[in-house]
Amino acid sequence: MTRKGHRERRKAGAIRQLPWQQVRNPYAPVEVLSADQVEAIVGAALTILETTGFRFLREESRKLVESAGAEPANGRGMTRLGRDLVMAKLALAPTQFALRARNRARDLVIGGNHIVFAAVGGPAFVSDLDKGRRPGNYAEMCDYFRLIQSLNIIHQECGGCFEPMDLPPESRHLDLYLAQHTLLDKSAQAYPLGRERTADCLEMTAISFGISREALTENPAVVGIINTNSPMQIDIPMAEAVHELAGANQVCCITPFTLAGSMSPATLAGTLAQQTAEVLAVVTLAQLVREGAPVIYGAFASNVDMQSGAPALGTPEYAKMAMASGQLARRLGLPFRSSSTTTANVADAQSAYESQMSLWGAVMGHANLVVHAAGWLEGGLTASLEKLVIDAEMLQMMAETLKPIVVSDEELALDTIAEVPPGGHHFGTAHTLARYESAFYTPIVSNRQNFESWQEQGSVDTLTRANGLWKQLLADYEKPPIDPATEEALTDYVERRKAEIAGRQ
Amino acid sequence: MTRKGHRERRKAGAIRQLPWQQVRNPYAPVEVLSADQVEAIVGAALTILETTGFRFLREESRKLVESAGAEPANGRGMTRLGRDLVMAKLALAPTQFALRARNRARDLVIGGNHIVFAAVGGPAFVSDLDKGRRPGNYAEMCDYFRLIQSLNIIHQECGGCFEPMDLPPESRHLDLYLAQHTLLDKSAQAYPLGRERTADCLEMTAISFGISREALTENPAVVGIINTNSPMQIDIPMAEAVHELAGANQVCCITPFTLAGSMSPATLAGTLAQQTAEVLAVVTLAQLVREGAPVIYGAFASNVDMQSGAPALGTPEYAKMAMASGQLARRLGLPFRSSSTTTANVADAQSAYESQMSLWGAVMGHANLVVHAAGWLEGGLTASLEKLVIDAEMLQMMAETLKPIVVSDEELALDTIAEVPPGGHHFGTAHTLARYESAFYTPIVSNRQNFESWQEQGSVDTLTRANGLWKQLLADYEKPPIDPATEEALTDYVERRKAEIAGRQ
Repeated sequence: MTRKGHRERRKAGAIRQLPWQQVRNPYAPVEVLSADQVEAIVGAALTILETTGFRFLREESRKLVESAGAEPANGRGMTRLGRDLVMAKLALAPTQFALRARNRARDLVIGGNHIVFAAVGGPAFVSDLDKGRRPGNYAEMCDYFRLIQSLNIIHQECGGCFEPMDLPPESRHLDLYLAQHTLLDKSAQAYPLGRERTADCLEMTAISFGISREALTENPAVVGIINTNSPMQIDIPMAEAVHELAGANQVCCITPFTLAGSMSPATLAGTLAQQTAEVLAVVTLAQLVREGAPVIYGAFASNVDMQSGAPALGTPEYAKMAMASGQLARRLGLPFRSSSTTTANVADAQSAYESQMSLWGAVMGHANLVVHAAGWLEGGLTASLEKLVIDAEMLQMMAETLKPIVVSDEELALDTIAEVPPGGHHFGTAHTLARYESAFYTPIVSNRQNFESWQEQGSVDTLTRANGLWKQLLADYEKPPIDPATEEALTDYVERRKAEIAGRQ
Repeated sequence: MTRKGHRERRKAGAIRQLPWQQVRNPYAPVEVLSADQVEAIVGAALTILETTGFRFLREESRKLVESAGAEPANGRGMTRLGRDLVMAKLALAPTQFALRARNRARDLVIGGNHIVFAAVGGPAFVSDLDKGRRPGNYAEMCDYFRLIQSLNIIHQECGGCFEPMDLPPESRHLDLYLAQHTLLDKSAQAYPLGRERTADCLEMTAISFGISREALTENPAVVGIINTNSPMQIDIPMAEAVHELAGANQVCCITPFTLAGSMSPATLAGTLAQQTAEVLAVVTLAQLVREGAPVIYGAFASNVDMQSGAPALGTPEYAKMAMASGQLARRLGLPFRSSSTTTANVADAQSAYESQMSLWGAVMGHANLVVHAAGWLEGGLTASLEKLVIDAEMLQMMAETLKPIVVSDEELALDTIAEVPPGGHHFGTAHTLARYESAFYTPIVSNRQNFESWQEQGSVDTLTRANGLWKQLLADYEKPPIDPATEEALTDYVERRKAEIAGRQ
């Protein structure tokens, strides 16, 4: 660990954690599809766009795509996109780009072998062991943000960990952005539901960075999750966000919501083909809005439970499609987004093994952005405080797993092996003592006591330990420095916009 | 699912599970070491054996190795093994072999891209939610065996799921073998602690198969876990087992117990080098006992917790060393054994994410045998009934993840994608309806209810659901058919041997 790492660790209080770091995957991706299969799926996606088409519900988007040569398709308001058009526009999208944060030391890279872990985004509820599951309020959202700031392994806030239900829906995005830019200094996503909410994000990001809107377009800083309304359409608010983001050279993370058997065919190949078609349709739109606009191939392909029709997450199908989606994204030259997911209603064994299934699928598939990587519960309906801590442990473990093994004379330690007698022990060797502090990963929430000690101390399970940990992290939280003039400018912007919105109603 | 699969499923009662299957990993292994690093570690292992040597505590073993050209090394009773000797003997070991089970439909293959999942072996305790953690007895061991038989995804019993403490230690292995051959028809491991216990296993296996001891040597059927006493020695009972097993053409799964920082250097490279040296020393012995005797490169490399000195399992280091060990084993041309491990004291989130870390490391590292794959808790001190069910779920999920994606016109489903309107749904299409029953993995213990339904039904967590499931599996258990004459011959053997053992004392 570097000197800097030690300092950062201490800043987070008594809880020892890994220093802030950009994570990279140095290993080759796991390929679950053959090269021929990848071509067949991409070919199928292009055929879908060319023959069936895609529906842009927003007229301005549809007209823009049609002005480039796409044609109205059928009575369903769909537009056919020829493969030459799609491939030409796809070629304009960057394969990798930097992402600016308020604190430049927290800048990120999206693409290549980089992995960004984003916290949970979008739930309706918050939950913890003390108060159970309930609609969240703004104060609770701010506390959740403080934890996201405190946990070094989380790189990005995901556009709202849950809805602050005590605030009016038409302006709560402004309070969200204010909290992002004052409580966090990390990368933060937009709440890209419609033109205004997206534009407010861009304005406030420029204020927060102390730069003009014009200067903001020089570097991507804002990611918006653009969910298509699978199958095969994009609605008006999402299309507006594409125009705002791409127009400002910001990032559209285009993520079809394809649950096989419900929003896509009950097969993995069909789901992957449809997902790819939907991504390509919106990539085409984004590149027509602005050539070279950064886009991400987003995958959220899972399946329904065929007995109940309920969403099934963290499944084997999910892990396999994550790895396959990574192959498809790389074939198309786009960064790849995946997620960590579970359907569990409590942070128990199921929640952990489903999240691990998704996480390993994402990481082995070389995801560049893992959304919902910490805090997600109940198929995304709840942000759990305990799960946030447990997931942070899993993310740290993954980051350590991706740290390459060093093979050198010193690490091979043949002299030490020769020194210790057969059946002896390595505890006291100079080689071991020199590495005592930092040889191996130190967990946050995992317990390594033997059964008797663990029982004596109350047989506390992981969920309960996590409850104590988030409270300690919250007590230790320190607000990252911000220029008071910047904070005032952000507050002024929020007040002015709230007045505007109120005046309109 | 095949017709046979359906029949097998029904046999296991009302609990739906995957049919019995040999699992294969069709994907390329994850390589965490470069080719140069692999060579450096193998070279270091050969240097350790050549310069420091290895201690064979059993004189007969030491003399056998020295008769082949190895030399006494130093005042510590070690023997130096030259690299030519080691590599020549290594070359005799098969890279893959079949493993016979009592029910030939349960025969296994060890090597290549095959994966065998073995249940937990060796704990001192048993635990469940009802009675907590306690020393187990024979009746409880038999119930645990019934569950191992009932869970299709478990391929092999691991030489005793826990010690039956109500039976005398000098003869309880006989009761164990009797239970293996009457309650199970799956592959079963030996309890290879010394010559007699191993020989009894071979005798009873021959009786169970209805073949002579001579005929038994024609095909491997028995695996014995041979733990070295790391660092760098093998004790007398384990060496006796090597002579018995290898002499009968049965399988030595040579597994150093290298916790980095305690039984090996506090570095991953040093631990891997020492592990490889220890495996190669015992491979040399086994091949001197009988040319071509089947052996497995066993890895149990983890690390100690550097704060407490306690074993740390399911760690990032564990996962990384599992993948590295797979590379080393393949370089040496040997099948590879890994494990699923955790230090958790209860089947909670930690137990699941640590087991998943190990399992993904093992599977991505192309382990051919995953020991302790179901039931392990407390760093291996306890066999848990609930964890057995939870692990079986994780193993099933892994088996499904390894089932390749089919890409065909029918699976791509372009006609169906064209048929469903934009924003519509796939629930009712002919394509979906045709796949309703078997499109996706159906879990055993995972819950996919929404929060409200789950809460109405008592907010039952995974641990508690697993408790209900093992009880149901036990109620549904059916003893696999056995020729009464065979069962009688096994019982007679046990009685005769018990009388012999009692007479000696």
